[in-house]
Amino acid sequence: MSNILDEYKDIYDIKKMDYDKLDEFSGEIRTFLIEKLSKTGGHLASNLGIVELTLSLYKVFDFNIDKIVWDVGHQAYVHKILTGRKEEFKSIRKYGGISGFPKRSESKYDFFDTGHSSTSISAALGIARTRDLEKKENEVIAVIGDGALTGGMALEALNDVGDRKTKLIIILNDNGMSIGENVGGVSTYLSKIRVDPKYNKFRDDFDKLLNKIPNLGKGISKSIDRMKDSIKQLIVPGMLFEDMGIKYLGPIDGHNIKELSLVLSQAKQNKGPVLIHVITKKGKGYKFAENDPDLFHGVGPFDCSTGKCAKKPFSYSKAFGENIVLLASENKKLIGITAAMKDGTGLGNFALKYPERYFDVGIAEQHAVTLAAGMASNGFRPIFAVYSTFLQRAYDQIIHDVCMQNIPVIFAIDRAGIVGEDGETHQGVYDLSYLSHMPNMTIMAPKCIEELFYIMNFALKQPYPIAIRYPRGGDMDNVKLSPYKNFKKGKWEVVLEGEKLAIIAVGKMVQKSILVCEKLKEYNINSTVINACFIKPIDEELIKKLIKQNYKIVTIEDGVIIGGFGSLVLNFINSLEEKVNILNIGFEDEFIPHGDPEILYRINELDINGIINRILKFYNLRR
Amino acid sequence: MSNILDEYKDIYDIKKMDYDKLDEFSGEIRTFLIEKLSKTGGHLASNLGIVELTLSLYKVFDFNIDKIVWDVGHQAYVHKILTGRKEEFKSIRKYGGISGFPKRSESKYDFFDTGHSSTSISAALGIARTRDLEKKENEVIAVIGDGALTGGMALEALNDVGDRKTKLIIILNDNGMSIGENVGGVSTYLSKIRVDPKYNKFRDDFDKLLNKIPNLGKGISKSIDRMKDSIKQLIVPGMLFEDMGIKYLGPIDGHNIKELSLVLSQAKQNKGPVLIHVITKKGKGYKFAENDPDLFHGVGPFDCSTGKCAKKPFSYSKAFGENIVLLASENKKLIGITAAMKDGTGLGNFALKYPERYFDVGIAEQHAVTLAAGMASNGFRPIFAVYSTFLQRAYDQIIHDVCMQNIPVIFAIDRAGIVGEDGETHQGVYDLSYLSHMPNMTIMAPKCIEELFYIMNFALKQPYPIAIRYPRGGDMDNVKLSPYKNFKKGKWEVVLEGEKLAIIAVGKMVQKSILVCEKLKEYNINSTVINACFIKPIDEELIKKLIKQNYKIVTIEDGVIIGGFGSLVLNFINSLEEKVNILNIGFEDEFIPHGDPEILYRINELDINGIINRILKFYNLRR
Repeated sequence: MSNILDEYKDIYDIKKMDYDKLDEFSGEIRTFLIEKLSKTGGHLASNLGIVELTLSLYKVFDFNIDKIVWDVGHQAYVHKILTGRKEEFKSIRKYGGISGFPKRSESKYDFFDTGHSSTSISAALGIARTRDLEKKENEVIAVIGDGALTGGMALEALNDVGDRKTKLIIILNDNGMSIGENVGGVSTYLSKIRVDPKYNKFRDDFDKLLNKIPNLGKGISKSIDRMKDSIKQLIVPGMLFEDMGIKYLGPIDGHNIKELSLVLSQAKQNKGPVLIHVITKKGKGYKFAENDPDLFHGVGPFDCSTGKCAKKPFSYSKAFGENIVLLASENKKLIGITAAMKDGTGLGNFALKYPERYFDVGIAEQHAVTLAAGMASNGFRPIFAVYSTFLQRAYDQIIHDVCMQNIPVIFAIDRAGIVGEDGETHQGVYDLSYLSHMPNMTIMAPKCIEELFYIMNFALKQPYPIAIRYPRGGDMDNVKLSPYKNFKKGKWEVVLEGEKLAIIAVGKMVQKSILVCEKLKEYNINSTVINACFIKPIDEELIKKLIKQNYKIVTIEDGVIIGGFGSLVLNFINSLEEKVNILNIGFEDEFIPHGDPEILYRINELDINGIINRILKFYNLRR
Repeated sequence: MSNILDEYKDIYDIKKMDYDKLDEFSGEIRTFLIEKLSKTGGHLASNLGIVELTLSLYKVFDFNIDKIVWDVGHQAYVHKILTGRKEEFKSIRKYGGISGFPKRSESKYDFFDTGHSSTSISAALGIARTRDLEKKENEVIAVIGDGALTGGMALEALNDVGDRKTKLIIILNDNGMSIGENVGGVSTYLSKIRVDPKYNKFRDDFDKLLNKIPNLGKGISKSIDRMKDSIKQLIVPGMLFEDMGIKYLGPIDGHNIKELSLVLSQAKQNKGPVLIHVITKKGKGYKFAENDPDLFHGVGPFDCSTGKCAKKPFSYSKAFGENIVLLASENKKLIGITAAMKDGTGLGNFALKYPERYFDVGIAEQHAVTLAAGMASNGFRPIFAVYSTFLQRAYDQIIHDVCMQNIPVIFAIDRAGIVGEDGETHQGVYDLSYLSHMPNMTIMAPKCIEELFYIMNFALKQPYPIAIRYPRGGDMDNVKLSPYKNFKKGKWEVVLEGEKLAIIAVGKMVQKSILVCEKLKEYNINSTVINACFIKPIDEELIKKLIKQNYKIVTIEDGVIIGGFGSLVLNFINSLEEKVNILNIGFEDEFIPHGDPEILYRINELDINGIINRILKFYNLRR
């Protein structure tokens, strides 16, 4: 078993293998991936789909000289196996283990860190253009999925690629999830013809070919002219491919190493930018993943032989999905929008039940926000469901198209706070900081899953923008809270009445605060716990009252401290011209790596014990 | 003189005019624009270019029912003249006067506020889709320039437009500044043929037409097949136009009202999305503007008869342009990047002198940042010169592609702080708040123009990301300061030594602080003035020293207070477990309208008197 993989030493081994051996190797790598990821979880389907493509890349290129940028990067597991990290797969995505994404700090073969979608062409172009300035000859490759290619920045990059005819190889890894259908029917045979050099210059010969057409009547000739012209117009902004001179090769069977190697070698010979269209199958070689690539996209541990995954507990995402269906039945103006995250955000049932009010815009958060703004400007109630980290892409649109016009777009911000295993590129710890300085923005967070409904219900009745942020996963097992229902803008809920110390917490951190409060009683501290259901505006009256009554104030949030909730409270107290010191608990000014959320909370002193220790120190100092 | 314009009452007047009269009207509107803007300044060239298109739109559509979104919006002056705001042009872009951009608060005919580029298709699509949900029949139109169409979010929107075949009219106002050349040669005659309904269904008939080609040899037939296929591939992501079913009409002469009206009427009949390609000439009808559309894009007051503009004083932008040329001669790895703002950012000379190291990526800030990240990851020293407000578009890329990898991209952030007449969409008051919570980001600001060189020189030697922010325009006339030269990360410059009160100021606000300090002496306050050349990291040692010596601390910045520089100082002092109250001077949590910067500073208490009053109140309270 696993002979090739066991004996595999370094990337030059691949160059020595013939195609049969590489096919065998592919099988071994698949078995390895399925076995390992069944224990750790991870991005299985996309990696199963890219085994042959990755091997072909290593067969043709020399990544001690050449450079590659993996778009998104969750499909770089095979690359990691091949570049000395096989043994680390037992700890992939775990705290201290290797990342699920390329990391320059992890390997000299990871040339550019990725995580968010659609960055690879820009980054690779930057590398290629500086290579040219240095007059070096190495190849630069970007591997981008069909979904990622719909992201605005990838299109911006394509628009720029041809500007100087920079030599660059773009591999479009088309796994049939979005543009696959358009091209899936084209036969391998045709693609092979196309990669023949004779036909590669086809485009250049376009006019010549047409001129060769014999015996055409005048009408037909005019038709052809019109067609040529029309085609030109059709591809305005045609710079995108044709006018920009990006050579197209493909489509190629992404599971045929011989063919892939042939085309990649051809691409190497090309002088300018070239795009190779590769058709792959997500989940390839593992029937459960092939049948349900969505489930096995980012999967938790599963049973290898049955494909059964552990059932996920009830989550905020699911609650959101139920709530929006419920609310949509009452509110005919409610609209649900997602940027290619239907299932992740819980919009699946809404999409089924209200297809005419459901919009999936592709990986296009900027467009999603301004689309929502257009809808809100026309009297509708759009809810954009999006992960905290991905909403970063639409920072400008939120300010410029929503807040400035003060129109009622609702942002349902999922995966806010620590997301865990996906790591630093995906932690949702910046939303409070990037939203709180936007004028007209109201920010809310439910302290428990059940409260999310009431917040959504409240938000739908307000005439201004509201961001509702909630975490990945569900509630804590050991805390039961009743939802608050009587929201009034800028008014907080006092969950527990105490004295001397007030813990003002955001969202799920209220649950932790309840446990902290209980423990603090052991130290004879009877604390008040406040649910800062409004992160902005803050409850100024309540804060003033707390200060007047000499409460010591602690804020707790699962976001960065700079510019976040605690800072808003501090700013306000400072503006009162009071000399007061408060304790802001949140994340420090550094990126938070991947790992189990509980570990990440602990090392950031945001677990129960960490919070208690910090509060005790603060409380005793200030006595 | 000006008979038509004088007698013009409302938009229905246009419907009554025949084409000759409309042509005459166009001339009058041009004269009006030139005369008015010669006094106030404003976006002349783009408005001269769009007179006939605007009139044609009003001729064909009824904007009491139909809706229009003007991309960017600086070309909406004609629209403003036609919708009851003619008399307000004496105060356009002035404080309290009408805005230079569409504003819903200004007119019921302004349907969506714009300012930044590339938003119109998204917004119009949102309006159109909700119109369909309401089963209304009105037309929705987006007018977008060829430049704006290269912005990623416009491309995201195009990608989405065809998804439901939403009825939407997109007008591509191609003024030849970027894609004009590709299509400029196509004759008006052809375009007229194309808008004939017979040919509009051309695309649908594409295959049929080809099949009609008679007597083809086998080879030719194969060639045609290949061509068809190749064309299909060329437009991957071909959904953009062809596959997405956006009908194309054009190109049309944008100064021929009759023809425009004909095509617009045709477009109305279309059931799905349609794009009308209109060729216009920037500056049309005013020879000085036609000859130098760049100069007359956003122009100050000028002499009507000579086209002479007032000479602009030496600005930070110009200094940046000189510095980068100087530094590039020493540093061969230095690269200059702009997103379609070569002249505005001062990169003109650099582009001439170092064309191989100069990159204009189009209106594509996201791509620009990640391109720079790619370059930096490959050992180069990219400087991305960009306006503060436009860098908002790349918030995610700065975090994700630059800061996370901690690579040395330099952001030269121009127009930081108040920009004035362009108003709320363009004020550069958020940069400190959106950059300061990014781990690994260093933020600097020069206190005077001369200092910019030394900061750039310093930045180029550091191995981490640095943002350098500086204001629009130049230095104050009545303050002369020597540049600081000995930068050490996180160390501030004490500009004036005083006692009891420390004013810590950012950038040009140091100049104001000097004047404030002088005036404060009249109140027997001898204040220290500190140049916070590092906005992040702050000078923790110096702050500790100030606190130890019981200084009262004032921070001054030309940005919003929430999440900004003063908040960083406050956060730090609070973290010292000190009970201290400081005074943070900056902008409050509301959008800042257009107007003369001095007026805007005054009403925000950021002028000399306002600052003094606030400091006196603070100082006396705390005594």
